[in-house]
Amino acid sequence: MKPFTGIFTPIVTPFDQHDAVDEVAMARNVRRWMKTTLDGLVVLGSNVEAAQLEDSEADRVVELVRIEMPRDRALVVGTGRESTRATIAATRRAAAQGADAALVRTPGFFKSQMTAAVLERHYQTVADASPIPVLLYNVTMFTGVNLPVESVARLAEHPNIVGMKESGSDIGQMAEIVAQTPASFTLLAGSATTLFHALCAGCDGAVLALASLVPDACARLRELVAAGHVEEARALQQRLTPLARSVGTTHGVPGLKAALDLAGFTGGQPRPPLRPLSPPHIALVRSQLEALAAPPSVSTELGAVMSAPARI
Amino acid sequence: MKPFTGIFTPIVTPFDQHDAVDEVAMARNVRRWMKTTLDGLVVLGSNVEAAQLEDSEADRVVELVRIEMPRDRALVVGTGRESTRATIAATRRAAAQGADAALVRTPGFFKSQMTAAVLERHYQTVADASPIPVLLYNVTMFTGVNLPVESVARLAEHPNIVGMKESGSDIGQMAEIVAQTPASFTLLAGSATTLFHALCAGCDGAVLALASLVPDACARLRELVAAGHVEEARALQQRLTPLARSVGTTHGVPGLKAALDLAGFTGGQPRPPLRPLSPPHIALVRSQLEALAAPPSVSTELGAVMSAPARI
Amino acid sequence: MKPFTGIFTPIVTPFDQHDAVDEVAMARNVRRWMKTTLDGLVVLGSNVEAAQLEDSEADRVVELVRIEMPRDRALVVGTGRESTRATIAATRRAAAQGADAALVRTPGFFKSQMTAAVLERHYQTVADASPIPVLLYNVTMFTGVNLPVESVARLAEHPNIVGMKESGSDIGQMAEIVAQTPASFTLLAGSATTLFHALCAGCDGAVLALASLVPDACARLRELVAAGHVEEARALQQRLTPLARSVGTTHGVPGLKAALDLAGFTGGQPRPPLRPLSPPHIALVRSQLEALAAPPSVSTELGAVMSAPARI
Amino acid sequence: MKPFTGIFTPIVTPFDQHDAVDEVAMARNVRRWMKTTLDGLVVLGSNVEAAQLEDSEADRVVELVRIEMPRDRALVVGTGRESTRATIAATRRAAAQGADAALVRTPGFFKSQMTAAVLERHYQTVADASPIPVLLYNVTMFTGVNLPVESVARLAEHPNIVGMKESGSDIGQMAEIVAQTPASFTLLAGSATTLFHALCAGCDGAVLALASLVPDACARLRELVAAGHVEEARALQQRLTPLARSVGTTHGVPGLKAALDLAGFTGGQPRPPLRPLSPPHIALVRSQLEALAAPPSVSTELGAVMSAPARI
Repeated sequence: MKPFTGIFTPIVTPFDQHDAVDEVAMARNVRRWMKTTLDGLVVLGSNVEAAQLEDSEADRVVELVRIEMPRDRALVVGTGRESTRATIAATRRAAAQGADAALVRTPGFFKSQMTAAVLERHYQTVADASPIPVLLYNVTMFTGVNLPVESVARLAEHPNIVGMKESGSDIGQMAEIVAQTPASFTLLAGSATTLFHALCAGCDGAVLALASLVPDACARLRELVAAGHVEEARALQQRLTPLARSVGTTHGVPGLKAALDLAGFTGGQPRPPLRPLSPPHIALVRSQLEALAAPPSVSTELGAVMSAPARI
Repeated sequence: MKPFTGIFTPIVTPFDQHDAVDEVAMARNVRRWMKTTLDGLVVLGSNVEAAQLEDSEADRVVELVRIEMPRDRALVVGTGRESTRATIAATRRAAAQGADAALVRTPGFFKSQMTAAVLERHYQTVADASPIPVLLYNVTMFTGVNLPVESVARLAEHPNIVGMKESGSDIGQMAEIVAQTPASFTLLAGSATTLFHALCAGCDGAVLALASLVPDACARLRELVAAGHVEEARALQQRLTPLARSVGTTHGVPGLKAALDLAGFTGGQPRPPLRPLSPPHIALVRSQLEALAAPPSVSTELGAVMSAPARI
Repeated sequence: MKPFTGIFTPIVTPFDQHDAVDEVAMARNVRRWMKTTLDGLVVLGSNVEAAQLEDSEADRVVELVRIEMPRDRALVVGTGRESTRATIAATRRAAAQGADAALVRTPGFFKSQMTAAVLERHYQTVADASPIPVLLYNVTMFTGVNLPVESVARLAEHPNIVGMKESGSDIGQMAEIVAQTPASFTLLAGSATTLFHALCAGCDGAVLALASLVPDACARLRELVAAGHVEEARALQQRLTPLARSVGTTHGVPGLKAALDLAGFTGGQPRPPLRPLSPPHIALVRSQLEALAAPPSVSTELGAVMSAPARI
Repeated sequence: MKPFTGIFTPIVTPFDQHDAVDEVAMARNVRRWMKTTLDGLVVLGSNVEAAQLEDSEADRVVELVRIEMPRDRALVVGTGRESTRATIAATRRAAAQGADAALVRTPGFFKSQMTAAVLERHYQTVADASPIPVLLYNVTMFTGVNLPVESVARLAEHPNIVGMKESGSDIGQMAEIVAQTPASFTLLAGSATTLFHALCAGCDGAVLALASLVPDACARLRELVAAGHVEEARALQQRLTPLARSVGTTHGVPGLKAALDLAGFTGGQPRPPLRPLSPPHIALVRSQLEALAAPPSVSTELGAVMSAPARI
């Protein structure tokens, strides 16, 4: 059976009024997610302020989340760093804290030096040293680096590299990855605005900020595609797209945090220089959440799948 | 019923050894395409040397093709020019020659001036003046201009603008166009490497160089998606992708012409500065054609749909 | 002595109220430019609606301008087309009409096919066939194609390729062209917002829309750089930049036409889909023209060089 | 008098065979640079593996360099981080260690959120909290974020923001910064391949990897521009460009380290995933260093300025 398939969400870090990690709120968020169909959580992912956490904060976050998660849900920890040695150190630390897999972002600072050969050697070295399975992580919009499909194909042969998160929305590139990797290799999408298309292209699931808000709808979309209900799936994607865009590319972490607050979680303030969402944008996100909670005009069945976690 | 749905191919112009249009070969090509399931032909499309034809040659090509096409197949003629008045003149000429619709590429020379408002007014003026239905045509990779989704939505309300060809491979943008235009508005994809994904996103068909070679396979892909056979469709797309890439982005017109020659049509030489495909690339295209003609390992049913026009 | 050095301007085509070429106004414009220090005119350049003229109009424009120009000023005609044969035909026609040189834009429609080898062969074939000297013309912002420095170096060896217009603002690339071509090869800049920097980098002159308005100031900038007055030249460039930007990238042909009308020339309406400049933008251009006509605070000498042709 | 003008070099971190910082070699490098005309050193700059150093290593590096530097040379320390609070903490630590100024790179991870307003507030907060002068640092090729000229103009009014390093090679943008900031604001270039052009545009100096190798030649280029010797300066730039490119964009840190080893410094191995330069590339860099050490054909004066630190 393929590991790490399904719907994951990269969790945010709520800060209290002193800009410290609000551990109580974080634990409460996790417990609530554990009541949904989510297949797992991603901690220290690129979308959720990992770049802004101190090392000590990062360690504490992993610890806390593991405590709240039952063993049958996957805890994936982001451990990518700019140097190979720091990546290995972070991966080992995550393993020691109970992570089920390491999500390793491509290094991206020295962009012009990040050739296919350099990236492949980096991943091989990390995978050799890692006590837990490694997931490749290509997020060109943040790193400016693209891990070539041919490199993915070669890396997929490593016994400790079990899958990949591809955050782009180039569906053709996703289809190529599916075509050129073995059936046992897991491919997870990272963009909720193109989730339906990524699933059609053969993705085995996704890691989505959107899934922090409407996890069951994301899972439902996956079922619809698997069952060949293309039109229904397309309609569900159309309903999800506005909110997906707000908490994804358009408003990023501040958008997601505002939406979480509206939905009864604790999102809290983003850490500067990120700024909280403005009131008009908050109103927009609220209307997008409400539109998903309301029974859709086209199908009463879809309405049900949204309603679970949203408490507005 | 929606007009101009289905699979179209943009036909190439074969030149003889004096670099003149080879009218006999062109007529023969058209007659052979008329024996396939193709829903129509696009003449003077951007992929097929329209940019390189003299005006008198262009007129002759339309005339010739109309003669060979029965009235129940759609003849679409490319009439986009850099000025509004030249576009209108070309559109009227095409109508007089029996074109069923005009495919109007966005002007693209003065890129920074091509705002949404400028493009909308251009299309409205052309559509007002055109005796035949107009199809918008967005081909950013050639023009450097992107017709915004919001503009498409507004233009779709014009009674004489009946559809659009979107040549990009941004599946998210296609899905947005489907979501924001009325059900009666036809959306045609233009990239064969992402045909399956475009169809999932709701496209009503496609205009594909690939369909000059394997029209029935393209039509079959459309049927598979309509029937919800997602996995089979994905497998067919995977089989088509290598050839699609060769006669699309990678080798362009020279690739398509070489493939047509190999498949028993007359492609002939590309017009300079375009250069004929090199022998190693010809060998590659030959192997890609043969791979499609051969019975695939996964499904004998797919093999049949390829075999029709390819005579290698 | 190096041919085609100095300051040139690409002239606009004034249209009358029936959208026909206003021949009287055009002749008047040319006569006025002939009273300035301009070294020559470029007709059918990419910035000035060549893409929008009918062939018959284009021929008439060249004819008219030649009549009004004394033989000791250079008439350069844009003859680049998408096919090699059409480029040669246009070049021969320009030569027959008395052009002193042909400015040959890179073909750019089939971008991915426009490799260095294809572009080099195109230019060699055109230069072999041309009765008049050829100037290469690289204008990536319009064509999406970049003629590599190495190709320029090779083409500069052709006896009939005497120079180049490089319209980009990548000063490093210009410096490379200067370094890799013989001293006899003329390099002309095409961007007025970086004219000073291009001249420092070794350009022998420029083809500038701005020079339709303030030709003597452009010539003065060239003299200042040649004399090593770096600070004064930098100050003059700073004064020119706002207007340069308005009639260049920001407002393009519509901006230039509006500025010409304000300065006592006949610019007239741009041909649709291009739209006339809006009143607020016209007011801005007027203030930019006035700022150049007024004596500058830093140096009375600079004021004089502006005042010549502007009659506001 | 303007602070922090002149030629600076961002120093590399030599590692020993156990991948630990080689403190002896580092001290030796610094002492040798102190015998040249260099105006100062940049430690923990983006080009020199700061992204790869552990915090404890970074602290040690600053300490070491300060010990070896006389007080009349400027020690600038890179302190930019993704969060405002971490940037402030790093800046205070650098000040405590004796840094003369903090070079603060724009945050760049959450690119789409890094609006002008967000970046301005970040810099204002950091400058308010910093005990030492702050230099803005825009390095789009690494961060994917561009600090707009208008923001620079506003930030230049802050009493504790005294200048900026602009690493791009968009000379027009540099000229705009010069034009829109007060005369007391220092602008340093960061690209050695366009150093001459940046100086013409009004830069007050530069921070260059190249200056680790040929500091006196870089200083000489500055003098030539100041004296209005445009042609001689252009010729010197042409001589410097090949090596500048090798240790800049083309080979980055590995190129610079190899060149330092060849020139008698200790560069050492780059930290993985960066890879050491290949032997053919080392041979190329050697020939580029030798070409600069040799008396140039055009001018014996230039030869002298190169010879100082290179011991090959």
